[in-house]
Amino acid sequence: MTDEAATAFAPGHVTGFFSVHRAGTPAKTGSRGAGLTLADGVTVRVERAEERSVALNGHEGAAPAVEYVLDALDASVSVVAETALPVGAGFGVSGGMALGAALATNHVLGRARSENALVRLAHEGEVEAGTGLGDVVAQARGGVPIRVEPGAPPHGSLDGVPATARVEYVSLGELSTADVLAGATDDLSAAGLRALESLRERPTLRRFVRRSRRFARETDLLTPAVASMVDDVVEAGGEASMAMLGHTAFALGHGLTDAGYDATATRIHHAGATLLDGE
Amino acid sequence: MTDEAATAFAPGHVTGFFSVHRAGTPAKTGSRGAGLTLADGVTVRVERAEERSVALNGHEGAAPAVEYVLDALDASVSVVAETALPVGAGFGVSGGMALGAALATNHVLGRARSENALVRLAHEGEVEAGTGLGDVVAQARGGVPIRVEPGAPPHGSLDGVPATARVEYVSLGELSTADVLAGATDDLSAAGLRALESLRERPTLRRFVRRSRRFARETDLLTPAVASMVDDVVEAGGEASMAMLGHTAFALGHGLTDAGYDATATRIHHAGATLLDGE
Repeated sequence: MTDEAATAFAPGHVTGFFSVHRAGTPAKTGSRGAGLTLADGVTVRVERAEERSVALNGHEGAAPAVEYVLDALDASVSVVAETALPVGAGFGVSGGMALGAALATNHVLGRARSENALVRLAHEGEVEAGTGLGDVVAQARGGVPIRVEPGAPPHGSLDGVPATARVEYVSLGELSTADVLAGATDDLSAAGLRALESLRERPTLRRFVRRSRRFARETDLLTPAVASMVDDVVEAGGEASMAMLGHTAFALGHGLTDAGYDATATRIHHAGATLLDGE
Repeated sequence: MTDEAATAFAPGHVTGFFSVHRAGTPAKTGSRGAGLTLADGVTVRVERAEERSVALNGHEGAAPAVEYVLDALDASVSVVAETALPVGAGFGVSGGMALGAALATNHVLGRARSENALVRLAHEGEVEAGTGLGDVVAQARGGVPIRVEPGAPPHGSLDGVPATARVEYVSLGELSTADVLAGATDDLSAAGLRALESLRERPTLRRFVRRSRRFARETDLLTPAVASMVDDVVEAGGEASMAMLGHTAFALGHGLTDAGYDATATRIHHAGATLLDGE
């Protein structure tokens, strides 16, 4: 069951609200909250190689979460990731790279780890790198994940909003996840837990977006430029909020185009990250 | 978020080996084991109606697990299920109907249940009806589910074999799940737990099918006609076993066609059961 190369796909993931939970190990550390996984995602091709290399959209560069995964799998491989998603803008590209690299490397090198074990590795890599707390477990699940308990398997637990929808987004650029997560997060987490409780009482797509919007405002994470887009969508009768964490507005249906924006359209993705057929 | 009608899809599910675990409640009762979810599945359309009705492939009939779900959701709806899978032959059609009905009814009637809550209802319906113990939680997950702990959320827990593959099957007809589950299952369960332990040590597709084959033989569930097909596939260099529970042989890749059989081809399905877009 080993090949020279394998390709995996991880959906994008936009978090709407979250709370931060630090624990004694990276596997138990994570976030609670909710988000949308997206059909626009990250494709990761892994090939046996004499020297390790990692590239995203044609550029080699530091990808500490991927390095963590490759170290754990004792892998000498080249990792080539491609995505149409904006990078650093709240779409879980780093988590998708780590997860895709874990799945494809496991296959190429015949490491015979289980899916939960690979998800745990990618999650640990993100936590250690400070690049994310909840994207990986969400991207491993697909749909509209509710992160009920923080952390990787077997610690974390997930539920979901049973829904499918067109999703639009407009991204104005990067916002550093590491900077926000390194700051004081107590008030942010309290707001995130209120939103989570409310969503679990009535897990619908509309409530998810509305509670996300309230969270973005309460925590002062909503930047003026994104706030203006979100306001325009709501005024036009739509539902929108801000991707956590990026200068990005997302909306259900045609919310952003109805409000006059030149938005990118995608959909909620039904599946979690997987190996792709072929090769 | 309510409509007049909604459609859901649940993948088929072939169990390779299992152990039976009875507990005080239907949600805690279930099976451990492993199987393949299949792109050939069950499509369930639910529409508001004055009188409740349930049909499969154009025929109205008893579907006790679906009735359980509709009772729990207080639903007056018509449920129209369609599948290309053989019915009663070990593909999880009853579980797929219950799960699809839960997802679609929840949407049509605006019941605002979470995905885990809907999975639990469908699982409880199957357990109460005696028509299945593990299909629903597997069909809700997709991929190659390993049922690590029995029961519905939040009791059960799942892992998976990270793999994708073409799957073939030949079905010779029905075999009553209820009859087997009503009999003595201690020896069967011991064999199932041995297979589970072995697969968790090395979760690959090949080991899954080999352990399934050993399970089918050890438990005397392997019928002579299916045994003969399985032997032919193995002799031709392939991997095959018997669907639990149906007069059905399944094989990886082109195993059955390579052995000269006129098999149906499908694939491992990446996603769990979902609402479909449109209407």
